[in-house]
Amino acid sequence: MKIGIVFGGKSYEHEISIVSAIAMKDVLKEELVYIFCDQNRDFYHIPTNVMKSKLFSTGDYKKCDTLTLKKGAFAKKAMFGDKNLDVDVILNITHGGDGEDGLLASLFEFYNLPYIGPRKAASSVSFNKFLTKGYAHSVDVKTIQYKYYTKNDPVKVVQFPVIIKPVTLGSSIGVSIVKTQEELLYALDVAFEFDDAIIIEPFISGIKEYNLAGTKINDEFKFSIVEEPQKTEFLDFDKKYLDFARTSTASKADISEDLEERIKESFKKIYNTQFDGSLIRCDFFVQDNEVYLNEINPIPGSMANYLFEDFNNILLSLCKSLPKTKDIKITYEYVNKIHAAKGK
Amino acid sequence: MKIGIVFGGKSYEHEISIVSAIAMKDVLKEELVYIFCDQNRDFYHIPTNVMKSKLFSTGDYKKCDTLTLKKGAFAKKAMFGDKNLDVDVILNITHGGDGEDGLLASLFEFYNLPYIGPRKAASSVSFNKFLTKGYAHSVDVKTIQYKYYTKNDPVKVVQFPVIIKPVTLGSSIGVSIVKTQEELLYALDVAFEFDDAIIIEPFISGIKEYNLAGTKINDEFKFSIVEEPQKTEFLDFDKKYLDFARTSTASKADISEDLEERIKESFKKIYNTQFDGSLIRCDFFVQDNEVYLNEINPIPGSMANYLFEDFNNILLSLCKSLPKTKDIKITYEYVNKIHAAKGK
Repeated sequence: MKIGIVFGGKSYEHEISIVSAIAMKDVLKEELVYIFCDQNRDFYHIPTNVMKSKLFSTGDYKKCDTLTLKKGAFAKKAMFGDKNLDVDVILNITHGGDGEDGLLASLFEFYNLPYIGPRKAASSVSFNKFLTKGYAHSVDVKTIQYKYYTKNDPVKVVQFPVIIKPVTLGSSIGVSIVKTQEELLYALDVAFEFDDAIIIEPFISGIKEYNLAGTKINDEFKFSIVEEPQKTEFLDFDKKYLDFARTSTASKADISEDLEERIKESFKKIYNTQFDGSLIRCDFFVQDNEVYLNEINPIPGSMANYLFEDFNNILLSLCKSLPKTKDIKITYEYVNKIHAAKGK
Repeated sequence: MKIGIVFGGKSYEHEISIVSAIAMKDVLKEELVYIFCDQNRDFYHIPTNVMKSKLFSTGDYKKCDTLTLKKGAFAKKAMFGDKNLDVDVILNITHGGDGEDGLLASLFEFYNLPYIGPRKAASSVSFNKFLTKGYAHSVDVKTIQYKYYTKNDPVKVVQFPVIIKPVTLGSSIGVSIVKTQEELLYALDVAFEFDDAIIIEPFISGIKEYNLAGTKINDEFKFSIVEEPQKTEFLDFDKKYLDFARTSTASKADISEDLEERIKESFKKIYNTQFDGSLIRCDFFVQDNEVYLNEINPIPGSMANYLFEDFNNILLSLCKSLPKTKDIKITYEYVNKIHAAKGK
């Protein structure tokens, strides 16, 4: 199988997407074709042997061949016309904006490229933490209580500590834990620097966190192990960053069968049919034996490969089980009816 | 102002998009440039003087010039290189799929074209009626109670009549009112023919319905009149279809100031910041003096021009108040840090 790995993007998570993409070399046994989306949204074909992070930080990637999107393929300019890149399926590993907000999903759909990754609606409900809350409510999964604010809204916090999160950023970017009124203004400034809207949640010190990744193959769920991630106060960007390079297998959280089952049930409700075609990681909190969704990562760091025993095979099976786009027949029934009625 | 009207799309609402686009000729005083997206998602430049529905039903549009998307423009092949179409702003009037599900929004964002229409997240929460419910809950707007089913879920209805709606279709496509157990199976078949998921709501006969359109210009809401739409049992496709051609001014609903104010408050909560850049119509139900959101039309039929006194000016002001895309600077701070740490 020839897997085209699309990564980079115009996004605050551009860098960690590069790290995730590189990690794929270690965990996938297939032929990989690297397709980089730079900050100007120009595409480049990166030969696998030069696929190192320095290529991007130095700007040397610009010496690689540029690609344009055509129906059915990424194409390279060649002496005689365009030459299509030989790829069976795209793996979208563009974290954050572009990759997780539905932009690339739309491009792949428009240009008719089969891809692993969240579809448009799944992207919207997981990329925006505020929409995640509403979605979780719809599918009957609990989340931590929260308040939503847009820029210029008066923010009032009654009880500290709280955690402030820009609604559309992942990897803890712009996130602060705020313990006093004095710290609040600065934390709001930081969050609103990255986003026009935020949510504020109570910060629950020592709350248990569990991660579960999974996908659906031929209508059947395939789960990873449940991991209890190591954490400092909360995962900051540096720590998470290194997580994106993870390739060694994680160990299973020490939890009861009952709790594991309930975490999986919550995952299923979230995944629903909206997330068909993607392999996602859901991060849950557990408090007083209740399961709460913290966030949905529709393109998890390094594809959460380290949570699966046989990541390569899971991904291959998923390739063969991607959702089909509906064949919509356009008739001109009503236009014709009107012409008949109008007599013209 | 040169307004590029993008319409058509690979969608069940392809035809009514054509009707809406034609209606714009009567209500906009600007220079209009028609850009048709056909069922194969090929773009054509349709000269304004041939802009009639028959052009599409006969397939004659294929004689028009084809367009390709480039950074900053739709372009036409010309003798010496490409020639960009001269357009100041795009008006997305592609109802249903492609236009209202975020696909075209993503293309416009990717190719850097300023446009009037819902952005990606706004598209997702309004296009999918199930996500609309969750979103409405988040912004504290009531909706009618409902059940959500995907294909193959066992459906049990305790109390009739109910209304069955495919989650992602507008213009009443695939919608049925079901009064008896006997009718249920057929109605489910119809709905699932169009979509993989449905919602079922109690059908409340004689419930009052009110429509309100509006937009936000420089952070200030601009509202249309509130209209009580005429309806038969419910708006079927034929009736709605003719609505898309409406250009004459509607009359104001006879409701109390208090109710009008509460409808506007609900609209504001829905529009929030998610819908910045678009002119939308929200359809509300009122029962026992409570306001319920029925649906969000992020690209209303004929842009709901008939609800505004000065539609042309509203649209022009909106053009000047479109949301800016965030300028994201990609640094390679973390990649560099890792190189420093690794000494390579």
